[in-house]
Amino acid sequence: MEIKIMKNILDRNQNKANEVKNLLTLKKVLMVNIISSPGAGKTTLLERTCEAIGGKFRIGVIEGDITTDRDAQRLKKYNIPIVVINTEGGCHLDSHSISKVIDSFDLDNLDVLFVENIGNLICPSQFDLGENFKLAVVSTTEGDDKPGKYPMLFREAEAVLLNKTDLIPYTNFSFESFNSDLKKINSKVPLFEISCTSGDGLEGWYNWISDKILLSNG
Amino acid sequence: MEIKIMKNILDRNQNKANEVKNLLTLKKVLMVNIISSPGAGKTTLLERTCEAIGGKFRIGVIEGDITTDRDAQRLKKYNIPIVVINTEGGCHLDSHSISKVIDSFDLDNLDVLFVENIGNLICPSQFDLGENFKLAVVSTTEGDDKPGKYPMLFREAEAVLLNKTDLIPYTNFSFESFNSDLKKINSKVPLFEISCTSGDGLEGWYNWISDKILLSNG
Repeated sequence: MEIKIMKNILDRNQNKANEVKNLLTLKKVLMVNIISSPGAGKTTLLERTCEAIGGKFRIGVIEGDITTDRDAQRLKKYNIPIVVINTEGGCHLDSHSISKVIDSFDLDNLDVLFVENIGNLICPSQFDLGENFKLAVVSTTEGDDKPGKYPMLFREAEAVLLNKTDLIPYTNFSFESFNSDLKKINSKVPLFEISCTSGDGLEGWYNWISDKILLSNG
Repeated sequence: MEIKIMKNILDRNQNKANEVKNLLTLKKVLMVNIISSPGAGKTTLLERTCEAIGGKFRIGVIEGDITTDRDAQRLKKYNIPIVVINTEGGCHLDSHSISKVIDSFDLDNLDVLFVENIGNLICPSQFDLGENFKLAVVSTTEGDDKPGKYPMLFREAEAVLLNKTDLIPYTNFSFESFNSDLKKINSKVPLFEISCTSGDGLEGWYNWISDKILLSNG
Protein backbone atom coordinates (compact mmCIF):
# COMPACT_ATOMS: atom_id res chain seq x y z
CA MET A 1 0.00 0.00 0.00
CA GLU A 2 2.75 2.44 0.92
CA ILE A 3 4.41 1.75 -2.43
CA LYS A 4 1.24 2.78 -4.27
CA ILE A 5 0.96 5.97 -2.20
CA MET A 6 4.60 6.78 -3.02
CA LYS A 7 3.91 6.22 -6.73
CA ASN A 8 0.95 8.62 -6.61
CA ILE A 9 3.08 11.26 -4.90
CA LEU A 10 5.85 10.85 -7.48
CA ASP A 11 3.39 10.90 -10.40
CA ARG A 12 1.80 14.13 -9.20
CA ASN A 13 5.27 15.58 -8.58
CA GLN A 14 6.33 14.66 -12.12
CA ASN A 15 3.28 16.31 -13.70
CA LYS A 16 3.95 19.57 -11.91
CA ALA A 17 7.70 19.31 -12.65
CA ASN A 18 6.87 19.04 -16.36
CA GLU A 19 4.87 22.29 -16.15
CA VAL A 20 7.81 24.07 -14.49
CA LYS A 21 10.20 22.60 -17.07
CA ASN A 22 8.05 23.77 -19.99
CA LEU A 23 7.82 27.28 -18.60
CA LEU A 24 11.59 27.53 -18.03
CA THR A 25 12.38 26.11 -21.48
CA LEU A 26 10.08 28.71 -23.00
CA LYS A 27 11.85 31.44 -21.02
CA LYS A 28 15.31 29.97 -21.82
CA VAL A 29 16.26 29.77 -18.15
CA LEU A 30 18.57 26.97 -17.02
CA MET A 31 17.48 25.40 -13.73
CA VAL A 32 20.02 23.50 -11.60
CA ASN A 33 18.94 21.39 -8.60
CA ILE A 34 21.87 21.32 -6.13
CA ILE A 35 21.84 18.37 -3.72
CA SER A 36 24.22 17.36 -0.92
CA SER A 37 24.49 16.25 2.71
CA PRO A 38 24.10 18.98 5.34
CA GLY A 39 27.19 21.17 5.39
CA ALA A 40 28.87 19.91 2.21
CA GLY A 41 29.16 23.46 0.95
CA LYS A 42 26.18 24.24 -1.31
CA THR A 43 25.78 27.83 -0.10
CA THR A 44 29.50 28.56 -0.25
CA LEU A 45 29.53 27.17 -3.80
CA LEU A 46 26.73 29.60 -4.69
CA GLU A 47 28.67 32.47 -3.09
CA ARG A 48 31.78 31.70 -5.16
CA THR A 49 29.67 31.17 -8.31
CA CYS A 50 27.86 34.50 -7.91
CA GLU A 51 31.23 36.24 -7.49
CA ALA A 52 32.74 34.55 -10.56
CA ILE A 53 29.95 34.56 -13.14
CA GLY A 54 27.40 36.97 -11.65
CA GLY A 55 28.67 39.73 -13.93
CA LYS A 56 28.21 37.60 -17.04
CA PHE A 57 24.87 35.92 -16.27
CA ARG A 58 21.67 36.92 -14.49
CA ILE A 59 21.40 34.51 -11.56
CA GLY A 60 18.36 33.68 -9.41
CA VAL A 61 18.29 31.36 -6.39
CA ILE A 62 15.63 29.30 -4.63
CA GLU A 63 16.83 28.47 -1.11
CA GLY A 64 15.26 25.33 0.34
CA ASP A 65 15.57 25.27 4.11
CA ILE A 66 13.72 23.46 6.83
CA THR A 67 13.14 26.41 9.08
CA THR A 68 15.47 29.41 8.71
CA ASP A 69 16.54 31.88 6.01
CA ARG A 70 20.22 31.79 6.99
CA ASP A 71 21.50 30.61 3.61
CA ALA A 72 19.49 33.29 1.81
CA GLN A 73 20.93 35.91 4.17
CA ARG A 74 24.42 34.85 3.11
CA LEU A 75 23.55 35.47 -0.57
CA LYS A 76 21.82 38.84 -0.12
CA LYS A 77 25.07 40.74 -0.72
CA TYR A 78 25.06 39.69 -4.39
CA ASN A 79 21.88 41.63 -5.04
CA ILE A 80 20.19 38.79 -6.92
CA PRO A 81 16.57 37.60 -6.72
CA ILE A 82 16.25 34.96 -3.97
CA VAL A 83 13.17 33.12 -2.74
CA VAL A 84 13.24 30.99 0.42
CA ILE A 85 11.08 27.86 0.69
CA ASN A 86 10.78 26.61 4.27
CA THR A 87 9.67 22.98 4.33
CA GLU A 88 8.84 23.13 8.07
CA GLY A 89 10.39 19.75 8.76
CA GLY A 90 10.07 18.34 5.23
CA CYS A 91 13.15 16.48 4.01
CA HIS A 92 13.15 17.60 0.35
CA LEU A 93 11.74 20.18 -2.05
CA ASP A 94 9.04 19.06 -4.49
CA SER A 95 7.82 20.53 -7.75
CA HIS A 96 4.65 21.93 -6.18
CA SER A 97 6.67 24.15 -3.84
CA ILE A 98 8.77 25.35 -6.81
CA SER A 99 5.70 25.97 -8.94
CA LYS A 100 4.19 28.16 -6.20
CA VAL A 101 7.19 30.55 -6.17
CA ILE A 102 8.40 30.46 -9.78
CA ASP A 103 6.29 33.48 -10.74
CA SER A 104 8.06 35.61 -8.13
CA PHE A 105 11.02 35.65 -10.53
CA ASP A 106 11.18 37.91 -13.56
CA LEU A 107 11.96 34.97 -15.85
CA ASP A 108 12.48 37.17 -18.90
CA ASN A 109 15.45 38.67 -17.12
CA LEU A 110 17.06 35.52 -15.80
CA ASP A 111 19.69 33.21 -17.31
CA VAL A 112 20.03 30.59 -14.59
CA LEU A 113 18.02 29.54 -11.55
CA PHE A 114 19.96 27.62 -8.91
CA VAL A 115 17.87 25.64 -6.44
CA GLU A 116 19.64 24.82 -3.19
CA ASN A 117 17.77 21.76 -1.97
CA ILE A 118 17.44 20.60 1.67
CA GLY A 119 20.68 19.09 3.03
CA ASN A 120 19.95 15.42 2.50
CA LEU A 121 21.72 12.88 0.30
CA ILE A 122 18.68 10.65 -0.12
CA CYS A 123 15.14 12.02 -0.48
CA PRO A 124 15.82 15.04 -2.76
CA SER A 125 17.29 12.76 -5.43
CA GLN A 126 13.87 11.17 -6.01
CA PHE A 127 11.98 14.39 -6.80
CA ASP A 128 12.19 16.15 -10.15
CA LEU A 129 11.65 19.87 -9.55
CA GLY A 130 11.51 20.74 -13.24
CA GLU A 131 15.28 21.24 -13.36
CA ASN A 132 17.51 20.72 -16.38
CA PHE A 133 19.74 18.58 -14.21
CA LYS A 134 20.79 17.67 -10.69
CA LEU A 135 24.21 18.60 -9.35
CA ALA A 136 25.77 16.49 -6.59
CA VAL A 137 28.02 18.23 -4.08
CA VAL A 138 29.95 16.03 -1.67
CA SER A 139 32.76 16.98 0.70
CA THR A 140 35.95 15.07 1.38
CA THR A 141 35.33 15.21 5.15
CA GLU A 142 32.23 12.99 4.71
CA GLY A 143 34.56 10.14 3.74
CA ASP A 144 35.39 8.48 0.45
CA ASP A 145 32.58 5.91 0.68
CA LYS A 146 29.61 8.15 -0.07
CA PRO A 147 28.98 7.27 -3.75
CA GLY A 148 28.98 3.56 -2.87
CA LYS A 149 26.70 3.99 0.14
CA TYR A 150 24.27 6.57 -1.30
CA PRO A 151 24.21 5.69 -5.01
CA MET A 152 20.89 7.26 -6.05
CA LEU A 153 22.06 10.86 -6.24
CA PHE A 154 25.37 9.98 -7.92
CA ARG A 155 23.51 7.94 -10.56
CA GLU A 156 21.22 10.89 -11.34
CA ALA A 157 23.77 13.70 -11.25
CA GLU A 158 24.87 15.55 -14.40
CA ALA A 159 28.09 16.51 -12.59
CA VAL A 160 29.72 15.84 -9.23
CA LEU A 161 31.57 18.50 -7.23
CA LEU A 162 33.96 17.09 -4.67
CA ASN A 163 34.37 19.98 -2.23
CA LYS A 164 36.78 20.68 0.66
CA THR A 165 39.80 19.20 -1.11
CA ASP A 166 41.89 21.55 1.07
CA LEU A 167 41.06 19.30 4.06
CA ILE A 168 42.24 16.02 2.47
CA PRO A 169 45.68 16.18 4.18
CA TYR A 170 43.96 16.07 7.60
CA THR A 171 41.66 13.09 6.85
CA ASN A 172 41.93 9.49 5.62
CA PHE A 173 40.04 10.35 2.40
CA SER A 174 41.22 8.28 -0.56
CA PHE A 175 40.54 9.86 -3.93
CA GLU A 176 41.14 6.52 -5.67
CA SER A 177 38.43 4.81 -3.59
CA PHE A 178 36.01 7.67 -4.10
CA ASN A 179 36.56 7.89 -7.83
CA SER A 180 36.46 4.15 -8.38
CA ASP A 181 33.08 3.85 -6.58
CA LEU A 182 31.71 6.87 -8.43
CA LYS A 183 32.73 5.60 -11.85
CA LYS A 184 31.07 2.23 -11.19
CA ILE A 185 27.79 4.07 -10.59
CA ASN A 186 28.04 6.77 -13.25
CA SER A 187 31.01 6.07 -15.50
CA LYS A 188 31.03 9.27 -17.55
CA VAL A 189 29.92 11.88 -15.03
CA PRO A 190 32.18 14.97 -14.95
CA LEU A 191 33.92 15.30 -11.58
CA PHE A 192 35.28 18.61 -10.33
CA GLU A 193 37.69 18.53 -7.39
CA ILE A 194 37.24 21.89 -5.72
CA SER A 195 37.75 23.87 -2.56
CA CYS A 196 35.30 26.71 -2.10
CA THR A 197 37.58 27.97 0.68
CA SER A 198 40.90 28.10 -1.19
CA GLY A 199 39.35 28.47 -4.65
CA ASP A 200 41.24 25.46 -6.02
CA GLY A 201 39.62 23.80 -9.02
CA LEU A 202 36.71 26.22 -9.29
CA GLU A 203 37.73 27.51 -12.74
CA GLY A 204 36.70 24.19 -14.33
CA TRP A 205 33.29 24.38 -12.68
CA TYR A 206 32.76 28.00 -13.79
CA ASN A 207 33.57 27.07 -17.40
CA TRP A 208 31.35 24.00 -17.34
CA ILE A 209 28.31 25.77 -15.86
CA SER A 210 28.81 28.80 -18.15
CA ASP A 211 28.66 26.51 -21.19
CA LYS A 212 25.44 24.95 -19.86
CA ILE A 213 23.86 28.36 -19.31
CA LEU A 214 24.86 29.55 -22.79
CA LEU A 215 23.43 26.41 -24.39
CA SER A 216 20.15 26.82 -22.56
CA ASN A 217 19.88 30.54 -23.36
CA GLY A 218 20.73 30.04 -27.04
CA MET B 1 -4.54 13.90 2.71
CA GLU B 2 -0.79 13.41 2.78
CA ILE B 3 -0.77 14.59 6.39
CA LYS B 4 -3.30 11.90 7.33
CA ILE B 5 -1.24 9.21 5.58
CA MET B 6 1.85 10.38 7.45
CA LYS B 7 -0.05 10.21 10.76
CA ASN B 8 -1.12 6.61 10.00
CA ILE B 9 2.46 5.63 9.21
CA LEU B 10 3.72 7.24 12.41
CA ASP B 11 0.95 5.65 14.51
CA ARG B 12 1.73 2.19 13.20
CA ASN B 13 5.42 2.85 13.72
CA GLN B 14 4.78 3.90 17.32
CA ASN B 15 2.76 0.75 18.09
CA LYS B 16 5.53 -1.50 16.85
CA ALA B 17 8.17 0.63 18.61
CA ASN B 18 6.32 0.11 21.89
CA GLU B 19 6.48 -3.67 21.38
CA VAL B 20 10.24 -3.49 20.80
CA LYS B 21 10.64 -1.19 23.82
CA ASN B 22 8.69 -3.57 26.08
CA LEU B 23 10.77 -6.53 24.98
CA LEU B 24 14.08 -4.73 25.55
CA THR B 25 12.97 -3.40 28.94
CA LEU B 26 12.06 -6.95 29.98
CA LYS B 27 15.50 -8.14 28.82
CA LYS B 28 17.24 -5.15 30.45
CA VAL B 29 18.95 -4.18 27.19
CA LEU B 30 19.66 -0.48 26.55
CA MET B 31 18.90 0.55 22.97
CA VAL B 32 20.54 3.66 21.50
CA ASN B 33 19.43 5.13 18.16
CA ILE B 34 22.43 6.95 16.62
CA ILE B 35 21.56 9.63 14.07
CA SER B 36 23.73 11.98 11.98
CA SER B 37 24.41 13.35 8.52
CA PRO B 38 26.28 11.06 6.12
CA GLY B 39 29.92 10.83 7.14
CA ALA B 40 29.71 12.52 10.54
CA GLY B 41 31.47 9.56 12.14
CA LYS B 42 28.82 7.15 13.50
CA THR B 43 30.74 4.00 12.54
CA THR B 44 34.06 5.33 13.83
CA LEU B 45 32.34 6.22 17.10
CA LEU B 46 31.11 2.62 17.34
CA GLU B 47 34.63 1.34 16.62
CA ARG B 48 36.12 3.46 19.42
CA THR B 49 33.26 2.54 21.77
CA CYS B 50 33.67 -1.21 21.14
CA GLU B 51 37.39 -0.87 21.86
CA ALA B 52 36.84 1.11 25.07
CA ILE B 53 33.87 -0.59 26.74
CA GLY B 54 33.52 -3.85 24.80
CA GLY B 55 35.34 -5.72 27.57
CA LYS B 56 32.95 -4.41 30.21
CA PHE B 57 29.63 -4.68 28.38
CA ARG B 58 28.10 -7.06 25.84
CA ILE B 59 27.46 -4.91 22.77
CA GLY B 60 25.20 -5.62 19.79
CA VAL B 61 24.79 -3.47 16.68
CA ILE B 62 22.09 -2.98 14.06
CA GLU B 63 23.61 -1.34 10.98
CA GLY B 64 21.14 0.61 8.89
CA ASP B 65 22.43 1.15 5.37
CA ILE B 66 20.77 1.91 2.10
CA THR B 67 22.51 -0.68 0.04
CA THR B 68 25.85 -2.04 1.30
CA ASP B 69 27.23 -3.79 4.40
CA ARG B 70 30.39 -1.69 4.51
CA ASP B 71 29.85 -0.29 8.01
CA ALA B 72 29.12 -3.77 9.37
CA GLN B 73 32.34 -5.04 7.77
CA ARG B 74 34.27 -2.39 9.68
CA LEU B 75 32.84 -3.69 13.00
CA LYS B 76 33.36 -7.41 12.35
CA LYS B 77 36.78 -7.35 14.01
CA TYR B 78 35.17 -6.78 17.42
CA ASN B 79 33.46 -10.15 17.29
CA ILE B 80 30.07 -8.80 18.37
CA PRO B 81 26.60 -9.67 17.04
CA ILE B 82 25.75 -7.37 14.10
CA VAL B 83 22.67 -7.33 11.87
CA VAL B 84 22.50 -5.23 8.71
CA ILE B 85 19.22 -3.70 7.57
CA ASN B 86 19.34 -2.51 3.96
CA THR B 87 16.56 -0.01 3.28
CA GLU B 88 17.04 -0.26 -0.52
CA GLY B 89 16.70 3.47 -1.02
CA GLY B 90 14.70 4.20 2.14
CA CYS B 91 15.83 7.29 4.03
CA HIS B 92 15.37 6.03 7.63
CA LEU B 93 14.91 2.91 9.72
CA ASP B 94 11.47 2.24 11.18
CA SER B 95 10.32 0.07 14.08
CA HIS B 96 8.98 -2.66 11.78
CA SER B 97 12.43 -3.28 10.32
CA ILE B 98 13.88 -3.43 13.86
CA SER B 99 11.14 -5.76 15.06
CA LYS B 100 11.89 -8.17 12.21
CA VAL B 101 15.54 -8.59 13.23
CA ILE B 102 15.43 -8.19 17.01
CA ASP B 103 15.05 -11.94 17.57
CA SER B 104 18.35 -12.58 15.77
CA PHE B 105 20.05 -11.26 18.93
CA ASP B 106 20.48 -13.35 22.06
CA LEU B 107 18.92 -10.64 24.21
CA ASP B 108 19.60 -12.49 27.46
CA ASN B 109 23.29 -12.04 26.74
CA LEU B 110 23.31 -8.40 25.66
CA ASP B 111 23.75 -5.19 27.67
CA VAL B 112 23.42 -2.58 24.95
CA LEU B 113 22.14 -2.49 21.38
CA PHE B 114 23.43 0.37 19.25
CA VAL B 115 21.43 1.16 16.13
CA GLU B 116 23.34 3.06 13.47
CA ASN B 117 20.59 4.76 11.52
CA ILE B 118 20.76 5.87 7.85
CA GLY B 119 22.96 8.96 7.34
CA ASN B 120 20.29 11.64 7.34
CA LEU B 121 19.73 14.55 9.73
CA ILE B 122 16.00 14.79 9.07
CA CYS B 123 13.78 11.73 8.52
CA PRO B 124 15.26 9.35 11.15
CA SER B 125 14.48 11.82 13.93
CA GLN B 126 10.73 11.33 13.36
CA PHE B 127 10.68 7.54 13.83
CA ASP B 128 10.81 5.87 17.25
CA LEU B 129 12.53 2.49 16.84
CA GLY B 130 11.82 1.39 20.41
CA GLU B 131 15.07 2.94 21.64
CA ASN B 132 15.70 4.29 25.11
CA PHE B 133 16.98 7.47 23.48
CA LYS B 134 18.35 9.09 20.36
CA LEU B 135 21.95 10.20 20.14
CA ALA B 136 22.88 13.05 17.78
CA VAL B 137 26.33 12.98 16.17
CA VAL B 138 27.41 16.05 14.22
CA SER B 139 30.83 16.92 12.86
CA THR B 140 32.58 20.28 12.95
CA THR B 141 33.22 20.15 9.20
CA GLU B 142 29.46 20.36 8.54
CA GLY B 143 29.55 23.90 9.90
CA ASP B 144 28.40 25.49 13.15
CA ASP B 145 24.86 26.20 11.89
CA LYS B 146 23.43 22.67 11.96
CA PRO B 147 21.42 22.78 15.23
CA GLY B 148 19.72 25.98 14.06
CA LYS B 149 19.00 24.68 10.58
CA TYR B 150 17.99 21.09 11.46
CA PRO B 151 16.41 21.50 14.90
CA MET B 152 14.29 18.33 15.10
CA LEU B 153 17.07 15.89 15.91
CA PHE B 154 18.76 18.24 18.37
CA ARG B 155 15.46 18.76 20.19
CA GLU B 156 14.95 14.98 20.52
CA ALA B 157 18.50 13.96 21.41
CA GLU B 158 19.44 12.72 24.88
CA ALA B 159 23.04 13.74 24.17
CA VAL B 160 24.97 15.46 21.37
CA LEU B 161 28.41 14.34 20.21
CA LEU B 162 30.31 17.03 18.33
CA ASN B 163 32.86 14.99 16.36
CA LYS B 164 35.99 15.91 14.35
CA THR B 165 37.12 18.60 16.79
CA ASP B 166 40.65 17.89 15.49
CA LEU B 167 39.65 19.60 12.23
CA ILE B 168 38.42 22.87 13.80
CA PRO B 169 41.76 24.70 13.17
CA TYR B 170 41.28 24.16 9.41
CA THR B 171 37.67 25.42 9.21
CA ASN B 172 35.64 28.49 10.16
CA PHE B 173 33.66 26.52 12.76
CA SER B 174 32.68 28.65 15.77
CA PHE B 175 32.01 26.66 18.91
CA GLU B 176 30.23 29.65 20.46
CA SER B 177 27.75 29.84 17.56
CA PHE B 178 27.16 26.10 17.59
CA ASN B 179 26.65 25.91 21.33
CA SER B 180 24.45 28.97 21.52
CA ASP B 181 22.11 27.58 18.81
CA LEU B 182 22.05 24.16 20.43
CA LYS B 183 21.23 25.49 23.88
CA LYS B 184 18.32 27.53 22.47
CA ILE B 185 16.83 24.28 21.12
CA ASN B 186 17.68 21.90 23.98
CA SER B 187 19.05 23.88 26.90
CA LYS B 188 20.16 21.00 29.14
CA VAL B 189 21.39 18.43 26.62
CA PRO B 190 24.84 17.01 27.45
CA LEU B 191 27.36 17.93 24.77
CA PHE B 192 30.56 15.93 24.23
CA GLU B 193 33.28 17.53 22.11
CA ILE B 194 35.16 14.58 20.68
CA SER B 195 37.52 13.45 17.99
CA CYS B 196 37.19 9.78 17.08
CA THR B 197 40.47 10.15 15.18
CA SER B 198 42.66 11.64 17.94
CA GLY B 199 40.63 10.21 20.82
CA ASP B 200 40.17 13.65 22.43
CA GLY B 201 37.14 13.95 24.68
CA LEU B 202 36.01 10.34 24.31
CA GLU B 203 36.49 9.50 28.00
CA GLY B 204 33.48 11.64 28.94
CA TRP B 205 31.32 9.80 26.40
CA TYR B 206 32.48 6.38 27.63
CA ASN B 207 31.60 7.30 31.21
CA TRP B 208 28.22 8.72 30.27
CA ILE B 209 27.15 5.76 28.14
CA SER B 210 28.49 3.28 30.70
CA ASP B 211 26.29 4.87 33.37
CA LYS B 212 23.29 4.61 31.05
CA ILE B 213 23.98 0.94 30.36
CA LEU B 214 24.40 0.16 34.07
CA LEU B 215 21.13 1.95 34.92
CA SER B 216 19.26 0.01 32.26
CA ASN B 217 20.79 -3.35 33.28
CA GLY B 218 20.15 -2.77 36.99
